[in-house]
Amino acid sequence: MQINISPQLQAIIRKRCQDTGHTPEEIVAIALRGYLEIDEETLFQTSTIGALVEGVYRGDLTIAELKNYGDFGLGTFNDLDGEMVVLDGQVWQLRSDGQAYPVADEVKTPFATVTFWQADWMATLAQPLNYEELQRYLDTLLPSDNIFYAIKISGQFRHVRTRTIERQDQPTRLVEAAARQPVHEFQSVQGDLIGFWTPSYMKTVNVPGYHFHFLSADRQRGGHVLDVCIERVDIGIDDTPRLRVALPETQEFLAANLTRDTQQELHQAEK
Amino acid sequence: MQINISPQLQAIIRKRCQDTGHTPEEIVAIALRGYLEIDEETLFQTSTIGALVEGVYRGDLTIAELKNYGDFGLGTFNDLDGEMVVLDGQVWQLRSDGQAYPVADEVKTPFATVTFWQADWMATLAQPLNYEELQRYLDTLLPSDNIFYAIKISGQFRHVRTRTIERQDQPTRLVEAAARQPVHEFQSVQGDLIGFWTPSYMKTVNVPGYHFHFLSADRQRGGHVLDVCIERVDIGIDDTPRLRVALPETQEFLAANLTRDTQQELHQAEK
Repeated sequence: MQINISPQLQAIIRKRCQDTGHTPEEIVAIALRGYLEIDEETLFQTSTIGALVEGVYRGDLTIAELKNYGDFGLGTFNDLDGEMVVLDGQVWQLRSDGQAYPVADEVKTPFATVTFWQADWMATLAQPLNYEELQRYLDTLLPSDNIFYAIKISGQFRHVRTRTIERQDQPTRLVEAAARQPVHEFQSVQGDLIGFWTPSYMKTVNVPGYHFHFLSADRQRGGHVLDVCIERVDIGIDDTPRLRVALPETQEFLAANLTRDTQQELHQAEK
Repeated sequence: MQINISPQLQAIIRKRCQDTGHTPEEIVAIALRGYLEIDEETLFQTSTIGALVEGVYRGDLTIAELKNYGDFGLGTFNDLDGEMVVLDGQVWQLRSDGQAYPVADEVKTPFATVTFWQADWMATLAQPLNYEELQRYLDTLLPSDNIFYAIKISGQFRHVRTRTIERQDQPTRLVEAAARQPVHEFQSVQGDLIGFWTPSYMKTVNVPGYHFHFLSADRQRGGHVLDVCIERVDIGIDDTPRLRVALPETQEFLAANLTRDTQQELHQAEK
Protein backbone atom coordinates (compact mmCIF):
# COMPACT_ATOMS: atom_id res chain seq x y z
CA MET A 1 0.00 0.00 0.00
CA GLN A 2 1.40 3.34 -1.13
CA ILE A 3 0.51 6.29 1.10
CA ASN A 4 1.35 9.96 0.59
CA ILE A 5 1.81 11.93 3.79
CA SER A 6 1.56 15.73 3.83
CA PRO A 7 4.75 17.75 4.46
CA GLN A 8 3.32 19.15 7.72
CA LEU A 9 2.68 15.66 9.10
CA GLN A 10 6.09 14.46 7.82
CA ALA A 11 7.79 17.22 9.81
CA ILE A 12 5.92 16.20 12.97
CA ILE A 13 6.75 12.53 12.35
CA ARG A 14 10.46 13.37 12.02
CA LYS A 15 10.41 15.35 15.27
CA ARG A 16 8.60 12.52 17.08
CA CYS A 17 11.18 10.04 15.72
CA GLN A 18 13.97 12.19 17.17
CA ASP A 19 12.18 12.47 20.53
CA THR A 20 11.29 8.80 20.89
CA GLY A 21 13.82 6.82 18.85
CA HIS A 22 10.97 5.28 16.84
CA THR A 23 11.21 4.92 13.04
CA PRO A 24 8.58 6.62 10.83
CA GLU A 25 7.11 3.13 10.13
CA GLU A 26 6.66 2.55 13.83
CA ILE A 27 5.01 5.95 14.35
CA VAL A 28 2.54 5.31 11.50
CA ALA A 29 1.81 1.80 12.83
CA ILE A 30 1.21 3.10 16.39
CA ALA A 31 -1.08 5.83 15.03
CA LEU A 32 -3.05 3.41 12.84
CA ARG A 33 -3.38 0.80 15.56
CA GLY A 34 -4.59 3.50 17.92
CA TYR A 35 -7.09 4.92 15.47
CA LEU A 36 -8.35 1.80 13.71
CA GLU A 37 -8.10 -1.06 16.13
CA ILE A 38 -8.33 0.48 19.55
CA ASP A 39 -10.89 3.04 18.41
CA GLU A 40 -13.37 0.27 17.69
CA GLU A 41 -13.28 -0.21 21.46
CA THR A 42 -13.26 3.51 22.23
CA LEU A 43 -16.07 5.77 23.27
CA PHE A 44 -15.35 9.26 21.95
CA GLN A 45 -17.19 12.19 23.44
CA THR A 46 -17.03 15.93 23.29
CA SER A 47 -17.48 17.94 26.51
CA THR A 48 -19.09 16.43 29.62
CA ILE A 49 -22.68 15.84 30.69
CA GLY A 50 -21.92 17.99 33.75
CA ALA A 51 -21.15 20.98 31.50
CA LEU A 52 -24.37 20.39 29.52
CA VAL A 53 -26.41 20.33 32.75
CA GLU A 54 -24.78 23.66 33.69
CA GLY A 55 -25.98 25.17 30.41
CA VAL A 56 -22.80 25.01 28.28
CA TYR A 57 -24.75 24.56 25.01
CA ARG A 58 -22.10 25.62 22.49
CA GLY A 59 -19.22 23.38 21.49
CA ASP A 60 -16.45 23.68 18.92
CA LEU A 61 -16.61 20.19 17.37
CA THR A 62 -18.24 19.89 13.93
CA ILE A 63 -20.31 16.93 12.74
CA ALA A 64 -17.60 16.30 10.08
CA GLU A 65 -14.98 15.91 12.87
CA LEU A 66 -17.32 13.85 15.04
CA LYS A 67 -17.73 11.30 12.21
CA ASN A 68 -13.96 10.64 12.32
CA TYR A 69 -14.43 9.14 15.78
CA GLY A 70 -17.44 6.89 15.22
CA ASP A 71 -20.36 5.78 13.11
CA PHE A 72 -22.79 5.08 15.99
CA GLY A 73 -23.96 7.25 18.86
CA LEU A 74 -26.05 10.09 20.20
CA GLY A 75 -25.88 13.65 21.44
CA THR A 76 -27.32 17.07 20.80
CA PHE A 77 -26.52 20.17 18.73
CA ASN A 78 -25.38 23.69 19.57
CA ASP A 79 -28.12 25.67 21.39
CA LEU A 80 -29.71 22.27 22.23
CA ASP A 81 -31.30 22.22 18.78
CA GLY A 82 -32.82 18.72 19.07
CA GLU A 83 -31.55 15.20 19.75
CA MET A 84 -28.73 13.57 17.74
CA VAL A 85 -28.67 10.01 16.43
CA VAL A 86 -25.59 8.62 14.63
CA LEU A 87 -26.36 5.32 12.91
CA ASP A 88 -24.42 3.57 10.11
CA GLY A 89 -22.23 6.67 9.79
CA GLN A 90 -25.18 9.00 9.14
CA VAL A 91 -26.13 11.79 11.53
CA TRP A 92 -29.80 12.64 12.16
CA GLN A 93 -31.24 15.65 13.92
CA LEU A 94 -34.50 14.93 15.77
CA ARG A 95 -36.10 18.33 16.14
CA SER A 96 -38.82 19.40 18.58
CA ASP A 97 -41.50 18.45 16.02
CA GLY A 98 -40.36 14.80 16.48
CA GLN A 99 -39.18 14.60 12.86
CA ALA A 100 -35.71 13.47 11.71
CA TYR A 101 -33.57 15.73 9.51
CA PRO A 102 -30.17 15.12 7.89
CA VAL A 103 -27.39 17.34 9.30
CA ALA A 104 -24.79 19.45 7.48
CA ASP A 105 -21.12 18.67 8.18
CA GLU A 106 -20.38 22.17 9.53
CA VAL A 107 -23.05 22.06 12.27
CA LYS A 108 -21.46 21.94 15.75
CA THR A 109 -22.22 19.93 18.86
CA PRO A 110 -21.82 20.81 22.57
CA PHE A 111 -22.17 17.15 23.65
CA ALA A 112 -22.05 13.93 21.67
CA THR A 113 -20.91 10.33 22.24
CA VAL A 114 -19.86 8.01 19.40
CA THR A 115 -17.98 4.79 18.71
CA PHE A 116 -17.30 2.62 15.68
CA TRP A 117 -20.04 0.01 15.95
CA GLN A 118 -18.91 -3.60 16.09
CA ALA A 119 -21.21 -5.90 18.05
CA ASP A 120 -19.29 -8.16 20.41
CA TRP A 121 -22.41 -10.22 21.00
CA MET A 122 -26.08 -10.40 20.10
CA ALA A 123 -29.31 -11.53 21.75
CA THR A 124 -32.92 -11.74 20.57
CA LEU A 125 -35.88 -10.86 22.78
CA ALA A 126 -39.47 -11.62 21.75
CA GLN A 127 -41.70 -10.71 24.68
CA PRO A 128 -43.46 -7.48 25.58
CA LEU A 129 -41.17 -5.75 28.06
CA ASN A 130 -41.48 -2.18 29.28
CA TYR A 131 -38.43 0.08 29.59
CA GLU A 132 -37.65 -0.88 33.18
CA GLU A 133 -37.93 -4.60 32.40
CA LEU A 134 -35.77 -4.15 29.29
CA GLN A 135 -33.08 -2.43 31.39
CA ARG A 136 -33.21 -5.25 33.95
CA TYR A 137 -32.77 -7.76 31.11
CA LEU A 138 -29.80 -5.77 29.76
CA ASP A 139 -28.31 -5.84 33.29
CA THR A 140 -28.16 -9.65 33.01
CA LEU A 141 -26.28 -9.39 29.69
CA LEU A 142 -23.52 -6.94 30.68
CA PRO A 143 -20.59 -8.79 32.28
CA SER A 144 -19.27 -5.77 34.23
CA ASP A 145 -20.64 -2.44 35.46
CA ASN A 146 -17.17 -0.89 35.15
CA ILE A 147 -16.69 -0.31 31.41
CA PHE A 148 -18.79 1.42 28.74
CA TYR A 149 -21.02 -0.50 26.32
CA ALA A 150 -22.58 0.67 23.06
CA ILE A 151 -26.02 -0.94 22.67
CA LYS A 152 -28.25 -1.21 19.58
CA ILE A 153 -31.78 -2.59 19.94
CA SER A 154 -33.47 -3.05 16.56
CA GLY A 155 -36.92 -4.41 15.67
CA GLN A 156 -40.58 -4.01 16.42
CA PHE A 157 -41.84 -1.80 19.25
CA ARG A 158 -45.44 -1.72 20.53
CA HIS A 159 -44.84 1.72 21.90
CA VAL A 160 -42.08 4.32 22.18
CA ARG A 161 -42.33 7.60 24.10
CA THR A 162 -39.65 10.18 23.35
CA ARG A 163 -38.88 13.79 24.03
CA THR A 164 -37.03 16.12 21.69
CA ILE A 165 -35.51 19.16 23.29
CA GLU A 166 -36.25 22.59 21.80
CA ARG A 167 -33.63 24.96 20.53
CA GLN A 168 -32.65 27.39 23.34
CA ASP A 169 -31.98 30.93 22.23
CA GLN A 170 -31.62 32.21 25.80
CA PRO A 171 -29.24 30.86 28.46
CA THR A 172 -31.05 28.23 30.53
CA ARG A 173 -30.16 25.32 32.76
CA LEU A 174 -30.75 21.90 31.20
CA VAL A 175 -33.33 21.03 33.85
CA GLU A 176 -35.42 24.08 32.83
CA ALA A 177 -35.04 23.40 29.09
CA ALA A 178 -36.02 19.76 29.63
CA ALA A 179 -39.13 20.71 31.63
CA ARG A 180 -40.60 22.36 28.51
CA GLN A 181 -39.67 19.67 26.01
CA PRO A 182 -42.27 18.27 23.59
CA VAL A 183 -43.11 14.59 24.12
CA HIS A 184 -43.97 12.26 21.22
CA GLU A 185 -45.72 8.88 21.28
CA PHE A 186 -45.17 6.25 18.60
CA GLN A 187 -47.42 3.14 18.47
CA SER A 188 -46.51 -0.11 16.70
CA VAL A 189 -43.33 1.15 15.09
CA GLN A 190 -40.18 -0.42 13.68
CA GLY A 191 -36.88 1.20 14.50
CA ASP A 192 -33.67 1.30 16.52
CA LEU A 193 -32.71 2.26 20.05
CA ILE A 194 -29.18 3.70 19.86
CA GLY A 195 -27.45 4.08 23.15
CA PHE A 196 -24.87 3.38 25.82
CA TRP A 197 -24.26 2.01 29.28
CA THR A 198 -22.04 4.33 31.35
CA PRO A 199 -20.48 3.21 34.70
CA SER A 200 -21.77 5.15 37.71
CA TYR A 201 -18.25 6.40 38.57
CA MET A 202 -18.31 8.31 35.25
CA LYS A 203 -21.47 10.22 36.22
CA THR A 204 -19.91 13.68 35.86
CA VAL A 205 -18.56 12.74 32.41
CA ASN A 206 -21.55 11.04 30.73
CA VAL A 207 -25.11 9.95 31.58
CA PRO A 208 -24.76 7.12 34.15
CA GLY A 209 -26.63 3.87 33.43
CA TYR A 210 -28.57 3.41 30.18
CA HIS A 211 -29.17 6.28 27.75
CA PHE A 212 -31.04 5.70 24.47
CA HIS A 213 -32.26 7.71 21.53
CA PHE A 214 -34.85 6.23 19.13
CA LEU A 215 -34.92 6.46 15.33
CA SER A 216 -37.77 4.88 13.34
CA ALA A 217 -36.86 2.37 10.60
CA ASP A 218 -38.14 4.82 7.93
CA ARG A 219 -35.68 7.38 9.41
CA GLN A 220 -38.51 9.91 9.78
CA ARG A 221 -39.11 10.18 13.55
CA GLY A 222 -37.59 9.68 16.97
CA GLY A 223 -36.09 11.34 20.04
CA HIS A 224 -34.62 10.82 23.51
CA VAL A 225 -36.24 7.68 24.94
CA LEU A 226 -38.50 8.13 27.99
CA ASP A 227 -40.37 4.81 27.73
CA VAL A 228 -40.71 1.82 25.40
CA CYS A 229 -42.61 -1.42 25.14
CA ILE A 230 -40.72 -3.84 22.93
CA GLU A 231 -42.36 -6.60 20.87
CA ARG A 232 -39.54 -8.41 19.11
CA VAL A 233 -36.02 -7.01 18.97
CA ASP A 234 -32.42 -7.93 18.26
CA ILE A 235 -29.95 -6.59 20.82
CA GLY A 236 -26.32 -5.94 19.90
CA ILE A 237 -23.71 -5.06 22.52
CA ASP A 238 -20.27 -3.56 21.84
CA ASP A 239 -17.74 -3.71 24.71
CA THR A 240 -16.07 -0.31 24.97
CA PRO A 241 -13.28 -0.22 27.59
CA ARG A 242 -11.62 2.95 26.25
CA LEU A 243 -12.73 6.55 26.54
CA ARG A 244 -11.59 9.68 24.72
CA VAL A 245 -12.88 13.03 25.93
CA ALA A 246 -12.33 16.23 23.92
CA LEU A 247 -13.08 19.19 26.19
CA PRO A 248 -14.29 22.29 24.30
CA GLU A 249 -11.79 25.14 24.28
CA THR A 250 -14.57 27.73 24.14
CA GLN A 251 -14.63 30.57 26.68
CA GLU A 252 -18.06 29.34 27.78
CA PHE A 253 -16.69 25.91 28.75
CA LEU A 254 -13.43 27.18 30.23
CA ALA A 255 -15.23 29.75 32.42
CA ALA A 256 -18.13 27.52 33.57
CA ASN A 257 -18.52 26.57 37.24
CA LEU A 258 -18.32 22.78 37.01
CA THR A 259 -17.83 22.08 40.73
CA ARG A 260 -21.52 21.63 41.66
CA ASP A 261 -23.08 18.18 42.11
CA THR A 262 -25.58 18.05 39.24
CA GLN A 263 -26.81 14.46 39.64
CA GLN A 264 -30.29 15.43 40.76
CA GLU A 265 -30.80 17.89 37.90
CA LEU A 266 -29.37 15.44 35.38
CA HIS A 267 -31.75 12.72 36.56
CA GLN A 268 -34.69 15.11 36.33
CA ALA A 269 -33.67 16.29 32.84
CA GLU A 270 -32.86 12.89 31.31
CA LYS A 271 -35.42 10.50 32.79
CA MET B 1 7.88 9.69 2.64
CA GLN B 2 7.56 5.99 1.86
CA ILE B 3 5.75 3.94 4.50
CA ASN B 4 5.17 0.19 4.59
CA ILE B 5 1.96 -0.86 6.29
CA SER B 6 1.47 -4.40 7.57
CA PRO B 7 -1.07 -6.65 5.77
CA GLN B 8 -3.26 -6.82 8.92
CA LEU B 9 -3.51 -3.03 9.14
CA GLN B 10 -4.06 -2.79 5.37
CA ALA B 11 -7.06 -5.12 5.67
CA ILE B 12 -8.53 -2.97 8.46
CA ILE B 13 -7.87 0.21 6.45
CA ARG B 14 -9.72 -1.26 3.43
CA LYS B 15 -12.70 -2.20 5.59
CA ARG B 16 -12.80 1.25 7.17
CA CYS B 17 -12.65 2.82 3.68
CA GLN B 18 -15.69 0.76 2.65
CA ASP B 19 -17.57 1.71 5.84
CA THR B 20 -16.81 5.43 5.73
CA GLY B 21 -16.15 6.34 2.09
CA HIS B 22 -12.70 7.68 3.10
CA THR B 23 -9.62 6.94 0.96
CA PRO B 24 -6.65 5.12 2.56
CA GLU B 25 -4.75 8.45 2.45
CA GLU B 26 -7.49 10.11 4.47
CA ILE B 27 -7.58 7.28 7.03
CA VAL B 28 -3.80 7.48 7.55
CA ALA B 29 -3.95 11.29 7.81
CA ILE B 30 -6.79 11.16 10.38
CA ALA B 31 -4.89 8.54 12.39
CA LEU B 32 -1.63 10.53 12.31
CA ARG B 33 -3.31 13.83 13.16
CA GLY B 34 -5.06 12.11 16.05
CA TYR B 35 -1.91 10.48 17.34
CA LEU B 36 0.71 13.15 16.69
CA GLU B 37 -1.00 16.49 16.87
CA ILE B 38 -3.98 16.03 19.15
CA ASP B 39 -2.04 13.70 21.44
CA GLU B 40 0.28 16.54 22.38
CA GLU B 41 -2.81 18.00 24.03
CA THR B 42 -4.01 14.68 25.40
CA LEU B 43 -3.71 13.24 28.85
CA PHE B 44 -3.53 9.46 28.56
CA GLN B 45 -4.24 7.35 31.61
CA THR B 46 -4.74 3.72 32.40
CA SER B 47 -7.47 2.74 34.87
CA THR B 48 -8.99 5.25 37.31
CA ILE B 49 -7.90 6.65 40.67
CA GLY B 50 -11.18 5.31 42.07
CA ALA B 51 -10.16 1.75 41.15
CA LEU B 52 -6.70 2.29 42.74
CA VAL B 53 -8.30 3.51 45.97
CA GLU B 54 -10.45 0.34 45.95
CA GLY B 55 -7.29 -1.79 45.79
CA VAL B 56 -7.16 -2.69 42.07
CA TYR B 57 -3.34 -2.83 41.98
CA ARG B 58 -2.81 -4.93 38.85
CA GLY B 59 -3.19 -3.51 35.35
CA ASP B 60 -2.56 -4.91 31.90
CA LEU B 61 -0.65 -1.97 30.36
CA THR B 62 3.13 -2.37 29.95
CA ILE B 63 5.65 0.46 30.31
CA ALA B 64 6.52 -0.07 26.60
CA GLU B 65 2.86 0.65 25.66
CA LEU B 66 2.60 3.55 28.11
CA LYS B 67 5.55 5.27 26.39
CA ASN B 68 3.54 5.34 23.12
CA TYR B 69 1.13 7.79 24.78
CA GLY B 70 3.52 10.23 26.40
CA ASP B 71 7.02 11.18 27.52
CA PHE B 72 6.01 12.99 30.75
CA GLY B 73 3.92 11.87 33.68
CA LEU B 74 3.50 9.86 36.84
CA GLY B 75 1.84 6.77 38.26
CA THR B 76 2.63 3.57 40.09
CA PHE B 77 3.50 -0.06 39.26
CA ASN B 78 1.67 -3.36 39.65
CA ASP B 79 1.31 -4.33 43.33
CA LEU B 80 1.97 -0.63 44.15
CA ASP B 81 5.70 -1.24 43.82
CA GLY B 82 6.78 2.39 44.26
CA GLU B 83 6.05 5.72 42.58
CA MET B 84 6.46 6.30 38.83
CA VAL B 85 8.04 9.33 37.18
CA VAL B 86 8.12 9.70 33.38
CA LEU B 87 10.45 12.49 32.28
CA ASP B 88 12.01 13.11 28.86
CA GLY B 89 10.65 9.73 27.72
CA GLN B 90 12.42 7.80 30.49
CA VAL B 91 10.53 5.93 33.19
CA TRP B 92 11.83 5.87 36.78
CA GLN B 93 10.68 3.70 39.65
CA LEU B 94 10.98 5.38 43.05
CA ARG B 95 11.03 2.49 45.48
CA SER B 96 10.27 2.55 49.20
CA ASP B 97 13.99 3.19 49.93
CA GLY B 98 13.53 6.61 48.26
CA GLN B 99 15.94 5.64 45.46
CA ALA B 100 15.21 5.87 41.70
CA TYR B 101 15.58 2.81 39.47
CA PRO B 102 15.22 2.42 35.68
CA VAL B 103 12.24 0.25 34.66
CA ALA B 104 12.06 -2.65 32.20
CA ASP B 105 9.63 -2.29 29.27
CA GLU B 106 7.62 -5.37 30.24
CA VAL B 107 6.75 -4.12 33.75
CA LYS B 108 3.03 -3.32 34.07
CA THR B 109 1.13 -0.46 35.66
CA PRO B 110 -2.30 -0.36 37.37
CA PHE B 111 -2.48 3.45 37.19
CA ALA B 112 -0.43 5.98 35.26
CA THR B 113 -0.97 9.37 33.61
CA VAL B 114 1.17 10.66 30.74
CA THR B 115 1.22 13.25 27.96
CA PHE B 116 3.71 14.40 25.35
CA TRP B 117 5.34 17.39 27.06
CA GLN B 118 5.15 20.68 25.21
CA ALA B 119 5.08 23.75 27.45
CA ASP B 120 2.41 26.24 26.40
CA TRP B 121 3.87 28.83 28.71
CA MET B 122 6.61 29.34 31.29
CA ALA B 123 7.12 31.35 34.48
CA THR B 124 10.05 31.80 36.86
CA LEU B 125 9.66 32.00 40.63
CA ALA B 126 12.54 33.02 42.91
CA GLN B 127 11.17 33.27 46.43
CA PRO B 128 10.88 30.71 49.20
CA LEU B 129 7.32 29.35 48.97
CA ASN B 130 5.95 26.33 50.77
CA TYR B 131 3.74 23.79 49.00
CA GLU B 132 0.48 25.54 49.84
CA GLU B 133 1.84 28.93 48.68
CA LEU B 134 3.19 27.33 45.50
CA GLN B 135 -0.24 25.84 44.75
CA ARG B 136 -1.90 29.23 45.34
CA TYR B 137 0.60 30.79 42.91
CA LEU B 138 -0.14 28.07 40.31
CA ASP B 139 -3.87 28.86 40.77
CA THR B 140 -3.15 32.37 39.49
CA LEU B 141 -1.42 30.96 36.39
CA LEU B 142 -4.07 28.47 35.22
CA PRO B 143 -6.67 30.21 33.05
CA SER B 144 -9.44 27.66 33.73
CA ASP B 145 -10.23 25.01 36.36
CA ASN B 146 -12.05 22.92 33.74
CA ILE B 147 -9.27 21.29 31.68
CA PHE B 148 -6.19 19.26 32.59
CA TYR B 149 -2.71 20.78 32.76
CA ALA B 150 0.66 19.04 32.80
CA ILE B 151 3.05 21.00 35.03
CA LYS B 152 6.86 20.78 35.33
CA ILE B 153 8.64 22.73 38.07
CA SER B 154 12.43 22.56 37.74
CA GLY B 155 15.19 24.14 39.78
CA GLN B 156 16.44 24.53 43.30
CA PHE B 157 14.44 23.36 46.33
CA ARG B 158 15.27 24.20 49.96
CA HIS B 159 13.32 21.20 51.08
CA VAL B 160 11.24 18.37 49.60
CA ARG B 161 9.28 15.80 51.62
CA THR B 162 8.12 12.72 49.72
CA ARG B 163 6.60 9.34 50.40
CA THR B 164 7.22 6.22 48.34
CA ILE B 165 4.63 3.53 48.67
CA GLU B 166 5.75 -0.02 49.48
CA ARG B 167 5.06 -3.05 47.33
CA GLN B 168 1.86 -4.74 48.55
CA ASP B 169 1.90 -8.51 48.41
CA GLN B 170 -1.46 -8.84 50.17
CA PRO B 171 -4.75 -7.21 49.10
CA THR B 172 -5.13 -3.88 50.89
CA ARG B 173 -7.03 -0.66 50.46
CA LEU B 174 -4.91 2.28 49.26
CA VAL B 175 -5.61 4.20 52.46
CA GLU B 176 -4.10 1.35 54.52
CA ALA B 177 -1.08 0.94 52.22
CA ALA B 178 -0.46 4.71 52.33
CA ALA B 179 -0.62 4.80 56.15
CA ARG B 180 2.51 2.64 56.28
CA GLN B 181 4.52 4.40 53.59
CA PRO B 182 8.11 5.49 54.21
CA VAL B 183 8.66 9.27 54.18
CA HIS B 184 11.88 10.84 52.85
CA GLU B 185 13.26 14.34 53.43
CA PHE B 186 15.58 16.06 50.95
CA GLN B 187 17.33 19.32 51.94
CA SER B 188 18.79 21.80 49.44
CA VAL B 189 18.27 19.69 46.37
CA GLN B 190 17.99 20.30 42.63
CA GLY B 191 15.31 18.48 40.71
CA ASP B 192 11.92 18.43 39.03
CA LEU B 193 8.34 18.30 40.22
CA ILE B 194 6.40 16.34 37.57
CA GLY B 195 2.66 16.59 37.82
CA PHE B 196 -0.83 17.54 36.77
CA TRP B 197 -3.82 19.68 37.58
CA THR B 198 -7.08 17.69 37.35
CA PRO B 199 -10.51 19.40 37.36
CA SER B 200 -12.64 18.55 40.41
CA TYR B 201 -15.41 17.06 38.23
CA MET B 202 -12.90 14.36 37.19
CA LYS B 203 -12.29 13.29 40.82
CA THR B 204 -13.36 9.66 40.27
CA VAL B 205 -11.05 9.44 37.23
CA ASN B 206 -7.81 11.06 38.46
CA VAL B 207 -6.46 12.87 41.53
CA PRO B 208 -8.37 16.19 41.73
CA GLY B 209 -6.30 19.38 42.04
CA TYR B 210 -2.50 19.26 41.96
CA HIS B 211 -0.56 15.99 42.07
CA PHE B 212 3.24 15.95 41.88
CA HIS B 213 6.06 13.45 42.04
CA PHE B 214 9.65 14.61 42.61
CA LEU B 215 12.81 13.40 40.89
CA SER B 216 16.22 14.80 41.88
CA ALA B 217 18.40 16.31 39.13
CA ASP B 218 20.92 13.49 39.56
CA ARG B 219 18.03 11.04 38.92
CA GLN B 220 18.85 9.20 42.15
CA ARG B 221 15.99 10.03 44.52
CA GLY B 222 12.39 11.19 44.78
CA GLY B 223 8.78 10.18 45.46
CA HIS B 224 5.20 11.37 45.79
CA VAL B 225 5.34 14.99 46.98
CA LEU B 226 3.94 15.73 50.46
CA ASP B 227 5.61 19.10 50.99
CA VAL B 228 8.18 21.40 49.36
CA CYS B 229 9.90 24.69 49.92
CA ILE B 230 11.10 26.12 46.63
CA GLU B 231 14.07 28.44 46.26
CA ARG B 232 14.31 29.27 42.56
CA VAL B 233 12.34 27.35 39.93
CA ASP B 234 11.15 27.47 36.35
CA ILE B 235 7.52 26.50 35.89
CA GLY B 236 6.26 25.07 32.59
CA ILE B 237 2.55 24.53 31.94
CA ASP B 238 1.09 22.39 29.14
CA ASP B 239 -2.65 22.89 28.38
CA THR B 240 -4.24 19.48 28.03
CA PRO B 241 -7.91 19.65 26.99
CA ARG B 242 -8.15 16.04 25.83
CA LEU B 243 -8.33 12.85 27.86
CA ARG B 244 -7.89 9.21 26.87
CA VAL B 245 -8.72 6.55 29.44
CA ALA B 246 -7.82 2.89 28.87
CA LEU B 247 -9.75 0.79 31.38
CA PRO B 248 -8.00 -2.47 32.31
CA GLU B 249 -9.75 -5.57 30.99
CA THR B 250 -8.53 -7.64 33.92
CA GLN B 251 -11.04 -9.67 35.95
CA GLU B 252 -9.95 -7.68 39.01
CA PHE B 253 -10.98 -4.36 37.43
CA LEU B 254 -14.15 -5.66 35.77
CA ALA B 255 -15.39 -7.25 39.02
CA ALA B 256 -14.46 -4.38 41.39
CA ASN B 257 -17.16 -2.44 43.25
CA LEU B 258 -16.52 1.08 41.95
CA THR B 259 -19.77 2.67 43.17
CA ARG B 260 -18.50 3.91 46.57
CA ASP B 261 -17.54 7.53 47.17
CA THR B 262 -13.80 7.27 47.81
CA GLN B 263 -12.94 10.99 48.06
CA GLN B 264 -12.18 10.89 51.76
CA GLU B 265 -9.88 7.87 51.47
CA LEU B 266 -8.16 9.33 48.40
CA HIS B 267 -7.48 12.58 50.22
CA GLN B 268 -6.07 10.69 53.21
CA ALA B 269 -3.88 8.49 50.98
CA GLU B 270 -2.53 11.20 48.66
CA LYS B 271 -2.05 14.25 50.87
